Amino acid sequence: MPYAIGLDFGTNSCRALLVDVTNGHELASHVFPYPSGSDGVILNGSDPGLARQNPADYVLGIEESIKGVLQKARATAFEPADVIGIGVDTTGSSPMPVDEHGQALCFQERFRNNPAAMVWLWKDHSSYREAALFTQTASEMRPQYLSKIGGTYSSEWWWSKILHCKNVAPEVFDAAASWVEICDWIPAVLTGELSPKRMMRSVCAAGHKAAFNADWYGLPDREFLDRLSPGLGALRERLYDKAYTADHRAGALAREWAAKLGLSPSTAIAVGAFDAHMGAVGAGISPGTLVKIIGTSTCDIMIHPSGEPLEDIPGVCGIVNGSVIDGYYGIEAGQSAVGDIFLWFVNNLSPGKYGRTQDEQFANLAKAAAELEPGESGLLALDWNNGNRTILVDVRLSGLLIGQTLGTQPHEIYRALLEATGFGALAIIDRIEEYGVRVRDVVNCGGLAAKSPLMMQIYADITGRSMKISRSEQTPALGAAIFAAVAAGQAAGGYASAADAQKAMVGIGKEYRPAAEHHRVYRSLYALYRQLHDAFGTRQWSGSMFNVMKDLLAIRDQARRA
Amino acid sequence: MPYAIGLDFGTNSCRALLVDVTNGHELASHVFPYPSGSDGVILNGSDPGLARQNPADYVLGIEESIKGVLQKARATAFEPADVIGIGVDTTGSSPMPVDEHGQALCFQERFRNNPAAMVWLWKDHSSYREAALFTQTASEMRPQYLSKIGGTYSSEWWWSKILHCKNVAPEVFDAAASWVEICDWIPAVLTGELSPKRMMRSVCAAGHKAAFNADWYGLPDREFLDRLSPGLGALRERLYDKAYTADHRAGALAREWAAKLGLSPSTAIAVGAFDAHMGAVGAGISPGTLVKIIGTSTCDIMIHPSGEPLEDIPGVCGIVNGSVIDGYYGIEAGQSAVGDIFLWFVNNLSPGKYGRTQDEQFANLAKAAAELEPGESGLLALDWNNGNRTILVDVRLSGLLIGQTLGTQPHEIYRALLEATGFGALAIIDRIEEYGVRVRDVVNCGGLAAKSPLMMQIYADITGRSMKISRSEQTPALGAAIFAAVAAGQAAGGYASAADAQKAMVGIGKEYRPAAEHHRVYRSLYALYRQLHDAFGTRQWSGSMFNVMKDLLAIRDQARRA
Repeated sequence: MPYAIGLDFGTNSCRALLVDVTNGHELASHVFPYPSGSDGVILNGSDPGLARQNPADYVLGIEESIKGVLQKARATAFEPADVIGIGVDTTGSSPMPVDEHGQALCFQERFRNNPAAMVWLWKDHSSYREAALFTQTASEMRPQYLSKIGGTYSSEWWWSKILHCKNVAPEVFDAAASWVEICDWIPAVLTGELSPKRMMRSVCAAGHKAAFNADWYGLPDREFLDRLSPGLGALRERLYDKAYTADHRAGALAREWAAKLGLSPSTAIAVGAFDAHMGAVGAGISPGTLVKIIGTSTCDIMIHPSGEPLEDIPGVCGIVNGSVIDGYYGIEAGQSAVGDIFLWFVNNLSPGKYGRTQDEQFANLAKAAAELEPGESGLLALDWNNGNRTILVDVRLSGLLIGQTLGTQPHEIYRALLEATGFGALAIIDRIEEYGVRVRDVVNCGGLAAKSPLMMQIYADITGRSMKISRSEQTPALGAAIFAAVAAGQAAGGYASAADAQKAMVGIGKEYRPAAEHHRVYRSLYALYRQLHDAFGTRQWSGSMFNVMKDLLAIRDQARRA
Repeated sequence: MPYAIGLDFGTNSCRALLVDVTNGHELASHVFPYPSGSDGVILNGSDPGLARQNPADYVLGIEESIKGVLQKARATAFEPADVIGIGVDTTGSSPMPVDEHGQALCFQERFRNNPAAMVWLWKDHSSYREAALFTQTASEMRPQYLSKIGGTYSSEWWWSKILHCKNVAPEVFDAAASWVEICDWIPAVLTGELSPKRMMRSVCAAGHKAAFNADWYGLPDREFLDRLSPGLGALRERLYDKAYTADHRAGALAREWAAKLGLSPSTAIAVGAFDAHMGAVGAGISPGTLVKIIGTSTCDIMIHPSGEPLEDIPGVCGIVNGSVIDGYYGIEAGQSAVGDIFLWFVNNLSPGKYGRTQDEQFANLAKAAAELEPGESGLLALDWNNGNRTILVDVRLSGLLIGQTLGTQPHEIYRALLEATGFGALAIIDRIEEYGVRVRDVVNCGGLAAKSPLMMQIYADITGRSMKISRSEQTPALGAAIFAAVAAGQAAGGYASAADAQKAMVGIGKEYRPAAEHHRVYRSLYALYRQLHDAFGTRQWSGSMFNVMKDLLAIRDQARRA
């Protein structure tokens, strides 16, 4: 029986998932919390935007999580020699400077405690000035660098971080032979082929974060990079001009690792990619199916055959050929805050009567909110407490709540916030469909998809579409295992393609179907949401807002009569 | 030494205040809670709009509160025989059907438990359909009936309630020889002159609530009333064609009362008026001075010499000649919810960390909110959780909160709500000034004026005007005592006019001065408040809202840097 291991490197820990390649059954899972910093994140009191990671945690994590999962599976008929491949997904963009052997600079004594020589974690926001410079410069001289990434280059991305390193820690920048995304570095650690020149780079990371375009110009050109900062252009030659989809085999497991872990040295190592993209594969993405990974924020992924025409979709974070599955454009969108908004509400505005612990409060708010009819509270909210990632791509936006009276109850506001994120989800679906990509099906995964039936029912009622829930609760690790099975190939008991592997290994758990009468009410509320959305979020909109409160009260009165 | 008693009939209790006429010193005060119903209000489970009162509570209240206050003052040099007058203020519009002797119909055995035969308390909202009919009919055939009352006739007012009685309890309507406001009935009880024909009616009640116009048509005409409901017109002849300012003497204290209370039978009884209007007098109203009575909602009162021209002020609740002081137009405006909004927030959205009791929560929210700079929270709210009384005169409006992030704290929202009511106050001042009435000075009274220094400082900073606080905390009762002194006249040791009495009896306590740098920030925030106010509250407004969130963030960033 062939098995695959998916390694999922998150923000605070890494997880190994051992999967039966024939049917996707998850034998065991083992989590290793990173030992460094605060929950694995290295912070700096004087710069609240700074968030780094120690790459030694990943190396330790490979060993501990795989040993842990093999140990747990020992009780079953499973044999370690039956593991045919290992796949890797990570956070990103999380770049790291390396020496000419591909080793982390912070492994050198002179850089041991220098955060600039560590991993620049995805959520590091110290590089916002450099991001603005990239956007400004590109819009002037290379608009094509922005056309596939929603028009705005982010402070979370590759070039912003490298440029910030050059500005604030030039000794690190100068010492770096190259830079790597950790989704490229960890597979290289597993194969032992760490040389930056030969390291197989992920097209997912390259395309979504480094403005790489395989079909056209590769990485941004030297002239452009030197315009950002003289000397940055020289780095281009020490990076890469080719990038790979995750169904590629990066190599075989290095002999030292095989010996240490008790696995076969023929174990295939797949090219890495980001967690959301592999998660989409683990959830069963296919053309026409939107996968939503719902946690503190949301990542929305679709694919579209790369042989068919696809326009740029304004306001969508990224469109990259092969970033999810080979042969398809990966389309990435997202909401800046979803679970984070609910958490904010519960932590700040939920009174004691809903319970003493956070869990009790969430449960009781949801219970009371579930008893409300759509529209009954008279409330409407915008889901912009952390800005808007898609489709407005604007961090300078904020929350809005309208319709409160002297009788408004906390659970009514809680429901309005759930609904706001559902309206935000529909705005993304509408935008993608406007540009010719039909969204027939929605599969949800991530913590909130499993934990909040009320939210999922509201999403179904708002969008008028069934909300399917991924069978696996570890879709990124499952996606990584799927690519491990493809990298291992049919001869080893794996698959010829990701689609074949998905057919065997992926399933749907629950499904929430829309109720027609709720959808009808939500169409009216969504029209008001879009009015607020366009009025406060776009320069183009102009008109009267006089109808909004009246319409909300009319919808409320109707709901109460019914 | 001459003394006067002010009797203040509130929603849940009545109060007697014993005042030294020479200097306004308050010797003693006694409160009598009404024994009937729930805290003095008779409710009906099947009609949440219904709120009635038992007039027997007032009769008992006269005796108990006056006896109580005299008892408390006995320790001083005070002699009951030195009481030269009694003044009365009440809630309103609180009409009551009476028999031909002026006795309450509910005192008759057959109507004893019939709520329609009791006092229709000001906050009874069961007559909203009749109010809409009045507004509709008047706008078609008698627009002049609406021109001085802000354009919309309220469900809380005289004719709405009488017409609703005719519709739902015709046996009571048919049995009523006349109808009286309780501010007219209670002075009549004190003088013993209860006959509806001879009872002296308050021009304050008549003008603000019954669409009475002394200078023109008197009460609405018979044809109009019969159009509202055939048969209603016949009532007009059994009401009144003359109404009086509160400085008139209604009569002398009836002998039975004098004996029972131990007061002189020469004690003057003043014509009654509403609590807000007498409160304005007790706070020291004069031309150019706005008096704000701040409680659950707000009542704003100004006066303007009746010899000088005064336009209709659109959206202002009422302009009535003599309703506050003889020789002046009384101008009444107000905010539908002020303290009620803060109470709603504390009761619903304030978490345990601010304290366990309501008082603790209010204190700690205010303490934390006071540490914020204007604009620092990035939040802005509209104060429409209970609609807007002035200047939009629209109950179909609701609350709005904008600018919240994932870091927004409850005390920041609390401060934004305080500020929202301050912006609402400024909108009223601006409207009154636009129509030629200069607001030089603001005197605040009512519970919140004394209890919330933070709110008063915010109001000063927002309006750019000093906020003075009335020295008396019982301004309605003090106002009633002032009119008692005027009704008694100079010969008895009283005064020739209300202005003379005010000079001697009224004073200012604290004063909050505006800080220039705070006012500057609030000018920017007020411009955004007005944008939201006009956009959501008027049909005329049209434009973009794109600036609002950006401007709030810019103001916030500026405040945090400072």
